[in-house]
Amino acid sequence: MAYTLLVRHCGQLLTLAGGPAGRPLAGPAMSAWRIINDGYVACEGGQIVAVGSMQELDVTQVTAGTAIVEGHGRVVMPGLVECHTHLVFGGNRSHEFQRKLAGESYLDILASGGGILSTVRATRAASEEHLLANALHHLAGFRHYGVTTVEAKSGYGLDRETELGLVRVAGTAGHRQEVRVVRTFLGAHVVPPEYKGRGADYLHFLATEVLPALHGVAEFVDIFCEEGAFSVEEAQVYLQTARKQGFKLKIHAEQLHDLGGCEMAAALGATSIDHCDYLSPEAAARIAERTAGQTVAVLLPLVPLFLRQEKYAPGRQFIDAGLPVAVSTDFNPGSCPSKNLWLALTMACLKMGLTPMEALAAVTLNAAWAIGQEQECGSLEPGKRADILLLKVPTYEEVPYWLGENPVHEVIIGGVRVERPE
Amino acid sequence: MAYTLLVRHCGQLLTLAGGPAGRPLAGPAMSAWRIINDGYVACEGGQIVAVGSMQELDVTQVTAGTAIVEGHGRVVMPGLVECHTHLVFGGNRSHEFQRKLAGESYLDILASGGGILSTVRATRAASEEHLLANALHHLAGFRHYGVTTVEAKSGYGLDRETELGLVRVAGTAGHRQEVRVVRTFLGAHVVPPEYKGRGADYLHFLATEVLPALHGVAEFVDIFCEEGAFSVEEAQVYLQTARKQGFKLKIHAEQLHDLGGCEMAAALGATSIDHCDYLSPEAAARIAERTAGQTVAVLLPLVPLFLRQEKYAPGRQFIDAGLPVAVSTDFNPGSCPSKNLWLALTMACLKMGLTPMEALAAVTLNAAWAIGQEQECGSLEPGKRADILLLKVPTYEEVPYWLGENPVHEVIIGGVRVERPE
Ligand SMILES: [Zn+2]
Ligand SMILES: [Zn+2]
Repeated sequence: MAYTLLVRHCGQLLTLAGGPAGRPLAGPAMSAWRIINDGYVACEGGQIVAVGSMQELDVTQVTAGTAIVEGHGRVVMPGLVECHTHLVFGGNRSHEFQRKLAGESYLDILASGGGILSTVRATRAASEEHLLANALHHLAGFRHYGVTTVEAKSGYGLDRETELGLVRVAGTAGHRQEVRVVRTFLGAHVVPPEYKGRGADYLHFLATEVLPALHGVAEFVDIFCEEGAFSVEEAQVYLQTARKQGFKLKIHAEQLHDLGGCEMAAALGATSIDHCDYLSPEAAARIAERTAGQTVAVLLPLVPLFLRQEKYAPGRQFIDAGLPVAVSTDFNPGSCPSKNLWLALTMACLKMGLTPMEALAAVTLNAAWAIGQEQECGSLEPGKRADILLLKVPTYEEVPYWLGENPVHEVIIGGVRVERPE
Repeated sequence: MAYTLLVRHCGQLLTLAGGPAGRPLAGPAMSAWRIINDGYVACEGGQIVAVGSMQELDVTQVTAGTAIVEGHGRVVMPGLVECHTHLVFGGNRSHEFQRKLAGESYLDILASGGGILSTVRATRAASEEHLLANALHHLAGFRHYGVTTVEAKSGYGLDRETELGLVRVAGTAGHRQEVRVVRTFLGAHVVPPEYKGRGADYLHFLATEVLPALHGVAEFVDIFCEEGAFSVEEAQVYLQTARKQGFKLKIHAEQLHDLGGCEMAAALGATSIDHCDYLSPEAAARIAERTAGQTVAVLLPLVPLFLRQEKYAPGRQFIDAGLPVAVSTDFNPGSCPSKNLWLALTMACLKMGLTPMEALAAVTLNAAWAIGQEQECGSLEPGKRADILLLKVPTYEEVPYWLGENPVHEVIIGGVRVERPE
């Protein structure tokens, strides 16, 4: 069969291929993936079938029916994988942001009904049509930045019907446009007002009344382990139950305190441990060893920036300790209203000490591992989906360098040219 | 005469009008400008002729020949004014950025020929055609963010022919597309290798051999006053000479040390004093008083971020002390390769304590004052150029909130619809 799509004369083809088999990139492997100069990517239908340098191109497979995309010396790379978002919510918290800037404290805002529970109220009050329209709007925004796969968490419903609705909306949004959506159930985001002071009861309710309705619907179960949310012990019981029911696991942990949530979840075989700003390099090394490098630390550098906390996960030391890292925006209305994953990538360099090659791996292949999509996306390799970006820049070093800018020239998803941001 | 263009049903029309006459906004006036709900902006040719609420619209002026732009409840505001850029240069320093991230020190990089002098070499080696193409590329990038006026400094030539060429390229770039360019001569950027150890001689050369060729060509003369560049005394002599020759004045000062350059330049009547990260609130108050609030402090929050210095100008205290502030990217290949002025605006909120209304004034009207363009742009008022942005958001509070994103829906320059970023 002939190629249906050929991207050729790519200045630098960032394959993200060549790492160790069967596990995410960590240590020196995070910057040892293969870059091909003057390369090509060939696709049949929605899949990549061949990747190489132009000299290696099998021209017999290029026919009159092959759509040609000229690389013109650009960087060509896999579509970005956004592995941690709270995609579906009602309202926004811009007014609260303004109040914070004007000097009001977090507690003042909370006391007047602000904070996460204000988003819960807005989300419960919104129709599914409205939530879907919002989710589609934000997915279009992500796509504009070259994001071709997005993880979407529930967590602003905190009751059975709304939470199931949020997971349903995420799924519908994924089917209504090209960006792939992976669903995570985060009913255990905070204790809802109805269960005030009874966090363990709420988790029991989720485990017995809600999780059974999510088999085959949500891929992951997540929990926010933090002072004011759920304790390590509560999270452990809940995640064990979720695992027994067949869900893959994630955790929000060590965002504001070092409670030990990451190690606990990693010991349960969590696919990812997220935030990690207070995770020590020593604990990171223990996690890497215990999980044989399978659990990915998802780093969210825009959150401490937006919250003005300036305490960033020591990503450099995590990598050196053998812990694989991914980078994500944590897109949500409270602590990070940003879909600019490129900005997160640069901030991971500036604030967490990642090199450009490591940062690029952190938003592609390792992010795919963090959401169990490593067979589908995250690298340019035969057998993977043809999710391909053409960038405006000629070398990978320029990607983190142009601070805050969107380097995307063209987005291809599943072999279809879907977006030219300019 | 009938309206040629009407932007109507603007959800919030941010006029930036209503401040004190004859001076930039400072103190409480920075957040007291007029917002009109359900407003309109009417233009004739390239100029704004009327602004108001929809009830006030003179419908007799709306004819079959009036182009109608529907506001659809969006925020509508003046085009952004970018008041401090080093627009014209050869090469870039992405490789150096990568080396810094990999742990090399600034001195290592300097010793191997890196730093600002590497950009000087690349700029001297580039043809004017090449420099012009680069400048046009970057202006297009700025326009994409809704920037409709850009200040452009020379300063990577450091010899007579190259410096004159850089000013010429900036002028030509301004004529080749819609974004207006204001030219600043920054030959006094650093001491060139040819004058090593003889900074005063170099300034004398500039004042006698180069400035006379720039009358009517560059509007401003600027100097970098800092350890390793030029002293306060050297800068004072040079700026006095420039002022005698009829140039308006700017200074780069108090970026890395509190040397007193800002106060010196303000005393000479400088239009703007730029960086100010080490300027004390007390000195700011003295400057505000001495200049009767005429001199604008141009704050550049992306620079400490990109340089990982985390020492930000106390913008909140400057404003409270009565010193008008503007915000800019400082776009340049070394310390801030970003044209994302919206990101700078949000960082001014997060790191310098500006409120959203203050930050919006800082990138529009006060930025226009900072480059002597307050009669032309920076607000939506009759008599000004019809440089108008339609944003994707419905309230001004959402502008700084969506961190790092480009909120621009449409750009109108001089009454012409020039850009729809999506
Ligand atoms: Zn999160
Ligand atoms: Zn500058």
